[in-house]
Formats: sequence, C-alpha cells, structure tokens
Amino acid sequence: MSQCFGYGVTSADAPLTPMTFERRALNEDDVAIAIAYCGVCHSDAHQAHNDWHNTNYPLVPGHEIVGHVTAVGSAVTAFAVGDAVAVGCLVDSCLRCAACEGGEEQLCEKGPTGTYNARERNGDGFTRGGYAEHIVVRDRFVLKVPDGLDLRYAAPLLCAGITMWSPLRRFHAGPGKRVGIVGLGGLGHMGVKLAAALGAEVTMITTSPSKAADARALGADHVLLSNDRDAMKASRNRFDLLIDTIPNAHDVAPYLNLLGRNGVMVMVGAIDFIPPVHAGLLLQNHRSLAGSAIGGIAATQGLLEFCAEHQVLPQCELIPMQEINTAWERMQRNDIKYRFVIDMASLKAA
Amino acid sequence: MSQCFGYGVTSADAPLTPMTFERRALNEDDVAIAIAYCGVCHSDAHQAHNDWHNTNYPLVPGHEIVGHVTAVGSAVTAFAVGDAVAVGCLVDSCLRCAACEGGEEQLCEKGPTGTYNARERNGDGFTRGGYAEHIVVRDRFVLKVPDGLDLRYAAPLLCAGITMWSPLRRFHAGPGKRVGIVGLGGLGHMGVKLAAALGAEVTMITTSPSKAADARALGADHVLLSNDRDAMKASRNRFDLLIDTIPNAHDVAPYLNLLGRNGVMVMVGAIDFIPPVHAGLLLQNHRSLAGSAIGGIAATQGLLEFCAEHQVLPQCELIPMQEINTAWERMQRNDIKYRFVIDMASLKAA
Repeated sequence: MSQCFGYGVTSADAPLTPMTFERRALNEDDVAIAIAYCGVCHSDAHQAHNDWHNTNYPLVPGHEIVGHVTAVGSAVTAFAVGDAVAVGCLVDSCLRCAACEGGEEQLCEKGPTGTYNARERNGDGFTRGGYAEHIVVRDRFVLKVPDGLDLRYAAPLLCAGITMWSPLRRFHAGPGKRVGIVGLGGLGHMGVKLAAALGAEVTMITTSPSKAADARALGADHVLLSNDRDAMKASRNRFDLLIDTIPNAHDVAPYLNLLGRNGVMVMVGAIDFIPPVHAGLLLQNHRSLAGSAIGGIAATQGLLEFCAEHQVLPQCELIPMQEINTAWERMQRNDIKYRFVIDMASLKAA
Repeated sequence: MSQCFGYGVTSADAPLTPMTFERRALNEDDVAIAIAYCGVCHSDAHQAHNDWHNTNYPLVPGHEIVGHVTAVGSAVTAFAVGDAVAVGCLVDSCLRCAACEGGEEQLCEKGPTGTYNARERNGDGFTRGGYAEHIVVRDRFVLKVPDGLDLRYAAPLLCAGITMWSPLRRFHAGPGKRVGIVGLGGLGHMGVKLAAALGAEVTMITTSPSKAADARALGADHVLLSNDRDAMKASRNRFDLLIDTIPNAHDVAPYLNLLGRNGVMVMVGAIDFIPPVHAGLLLQNHRSLAGSAIGGIAATQGLLEFCAEHQVLPQCELIPMQEINTAWERMQRNDIKYRFVIDMASLKAA
C-alpha cells in the first residue's frame, strides 16, 4: 500500500476537497502511473452527488487519465518506466467471458471494474480515480499514448472519445454515410470531430442557433435545429446514424423520424427513462434504437492511434486541481467548450 | 374493367357480405390471377373496423393470395397462363427509389401500394384484396409458387411468413444463434418454424403454459413463460434475437433484459405506443430495439423457395368464404391454430 494525495468527496453534498488515501501495492501484473492530466466527465459529478444511489464515500473521481509509468510489476512486459500511458473508465474485468474475449470488457458478464467507486476485484476497498497524483492499474487495462498525441488532449478521448467512437465504428460511419450528432457538449463535440475524420457527412443537431458556427468549425457539414419544425420535417428519412448525447430524459420520436432505411439511433447520454415511443416509428424504414456504453480496451487503443494519426484532438480547457469545484459548476450549466482537463502538476505544487 | 365477386365491408360496424366490384382492365405489365386461396390476417379485421382511421369503404380485404394466372398483359414475360402464383401485401411501388432498388419495396420512399385500401398508383379508385374470385396485379409484384409447395400452405407465407422471415434473415438467425419468438399466434408459429428451419436454437416466449407442447411440436427447443419471474431472470442476457409478435401495447423491458451482447429485439406485431423504457437497458449489452414491416418482393420469393425446399408449412384451418365472419371472431379471441385460409372454390359454389 502507498499513500496517495488527491481530491475527493466525503458525502453527496460535500465539495471536492484535498484528501490522502491508500493505493494498493503493485501486483505482478500492475502498472504504477504518475498522473499528468485527468479529464473531467459529467459522470464524475453524478457519482459524487450519488445520483445513481450507489456511491461509496470517500469518492475520488476521474476516469480520463494520462501520465507516465513509474513502476511495473514483475510480470509486466508491455510497459516500461517512463512510457506515456492512459487509463479510461475500466481498470479490470474477468477477461474470460465472451464479452471480454470479444474485446468488449466494458460489457464483462461478471461486471467490469470501474476506475472509481467499484469494489476492487481482489477484494479490499473501492477503486479510486484520477483526481490524484498517481494510480495503480492492471496492465491489460493500461493504454499506450502514441507518439504525436499531446497528453493533454489524450485525456478526454478515454471516456468522451471512446463513447462516440464505439458506435461510430459499430455502425460503420464513413464515406457516403449521413451521421447526425445530437447535442453539442463534451460527447457531441468529439462525435462531430470523429465522424468527420472518418469521412462521414456530419450534421450537428442542436436546439441552439448559437452553436452553429462552432459546430461547423468542429467539422460539421450541416447544422439542424431540432426546434425548427420545418427543418426537422425536411430532414426526415435522411440519416443513416444518429448518436444522441442529450444527457437527460427526452422524447426520441423527433429524432427517429430523421432516420432513413435501416437507420440506427444510438443513445449514449441519457441514462433515464425514454418517454413512450410509437412502434410504428421503428417499423417504418426498419429503424433501430440502440444503446452504447463506452468501449473496449482494444477499441480505445485504436481510437488513440486514429487520433494521433489524424490529429483529432478534443477542445479542452486546462485547469488546476484547485479550481475543480468551479469547473464542476460550469460543467453543470454547460459553460465549457468542451472538456475540462485537470493539470495534475498543480496538485504537486499545492 | 371487369366485374369481380367477393366479400367486403361497407362500414366499420358492418359484417363481411358478398359484393360485386370492378377490377381494372389488364395493363401491359399486369397479370390476372384466379384466386384459389386467401389467408386471413389480423390486419384484415383492423382495416375493416377502421382501427387505423384510414379505411376507404367498401373494403375488400385479403393480402395472402395464391392462385393461377388466367391472362397476362402484352409486356409480361415472366408469367404465363396456368402458372401457380402468389401476391402478398404489396401490389405496386415506385421501383425507382433507393428502397425499391434495394429490394425493400415495402419501404418505398414514395409509399408502397398496399394490396387493399390503397389508392391505385394510376389514379382511379382503391385497391381491393383477395377475398374475391380474381385479382389483377403488376407483374413485378407477382410471386411464383415453387413446385412442391402446396398452394393452401403458401397463402400465410405472404404476410405472416415474410413478416418473420425478413428480421430472421436481417439479423442472421441460424446455427449458433439463440432466437426467441415472443407470442404464439399466426406470426409466432411461423417464427418458430422458420427459425428452427434456419438452424437457430429457438425459444417460444409466452404467457400460456398450455402452449408449451404446441410450441415444441412446431420446432421450439425451449419454452420460456414470461410471467415466471424466476425463469425470466435465469434467462437474462441469453438471446441474440427476439422477435416480438404481441399484437398490442406492452412493456418491452422484461424482454430487453433477455438480450445478450449486441442482441436485437424486433417489434413486428404491436403498432402502438411502447411504454417508457429505461435507456440503461439499451446501453447494457449494447442492445437494440428495432422494427420490421413485412418484406420485399425478392425476399418473399426467397421465402417461398425456402419453404418449398424445407417443407416449412404454416398450420392452417381451411374455411369456406361464407364462414369468414365467424373466422374473424375466432381470430379476435385467438381461437385458431394458427391461420385461417379461405378456400375460394367456396365462393364460386355459392
């Protein structure tokens, strides 16, 4: 065990405050990582506020982690001290079920181990995330940051990026495909960038006319205002794929209407009840309403490599750890373009 | 124009009664068919009762039609007098849009022409269906009944059969796939037979223990009682494909829970609102909720050939035309195993 300094919360109402906690000692297949940057995800605040009624306090959030290897266990061969590495939303899984063997560890049939708030697979205590100076992670769940990918920008790829990448790849976004990204936030802005880089014809679907210029700057070919009934009607039956990043409960019918033949709408943001939807909207055009949850380790590594090669970089605002409570408040009111990244050097300086 | 004798309804409350109506004269690409058998579909009664608020009276129902060619237009090359042929739910479409060119005429972007209650594509009057002595249909929408397929059994394949066949093929039902058919009626019994013939591991999912033996006789490997909470829980995450034939509005959550990784649930029966469903059920296991509507002409021809080759035959009860009102009443209370087929010889005898 080793002492680790970071920021966490002790109850649903408490702000993030500095705290010291224990990290496990290095197992033979573990990698110890000095954290350089950690992205700030909506989930961090949801979990801290116990919105899902399953939070184990004290909670140290953070699952968009990049840094450098400081030590490796005796059985680790893929990593060496000094390597630039990353950790996303998962730090362990059974590695034996069909999902794990199929490269979808996030769907592990035994339940994957989340980077924070999960019971450690070997039993004692809960995992703690990346709002901290270092972390110890099983080698199979550590990613390599490719040369040419700025560490700062790698962080948001680990959750926001892979959440969009996984359905874009699963449903074959690429040249000749019309892809709509619903909602322009942390997820949506990565969706636009990635879909455009994959060669798809990309439409940003938003309620905010003010976001149109930004969406185009990110790579959107078109902007569709979802509260413009005429525009929505004119866009019916047009899309092959929609990825819906809206973070709260909402009617999906207006979006389903946009899907053409065999079109798929993927929910990635709203973990909530979908209001009644008429089955006729699914029968028509043979549409599907699907869900997607982050992505597997190999897919995440593929994303990092794609982003390095194509220089697809999240738009980030770098903050010191001490400003995290303000950042969370701004994130809640969507006052961020488009992702906060904590500069962990600030932690050491404090 | 020619006079045609059949059975139809004149208002939402009226029973089916004998009537004479006009059929269009043979166009150069038309085929005239003497109807030998016509299957009885739930849609026939829905349309007659104006359940969808769009019925044009007088209505002559029937879209599971088999018979023999009596005449062909001057440009028809694929059919000759005497051929055994069939007509399903469609008698025309634009044949130019991406859906038609992709072999999914039922999803025609201009709107397909239904076999009854649709405006004739060339303008005058409405289409009238197969509860009649003959029908005139554009050659591209006429199917060949393969040698070895008993005409009586071909009829229910044209709607019930293709409705199940299309999603079974689209979602790759076959060896190694676990397929669940929800509901044992006209559609469900075809689903079990077809999925079994395709080599899938088939489960009948029903509320009725009394249907277990029948389901196994039809080819189901397993029967799962959807009101047995323990059995449903034990079957979670198990299925690759579910086809839901329940004909009225119902909660889909208990069925979504049964789907494993990348599993798909297809709605084919209930053209109604789906009660609120939690998006988490879709995110988990990357599930999809899809819809499917009958199938294209080429797919329907493929189904007829598959059924001839594998002798996959619907279980039918043959009735004379004069018993149609009783048959509809029995169909409404699900007192039929599993499809009524009208023997049109009875019409001529009357």
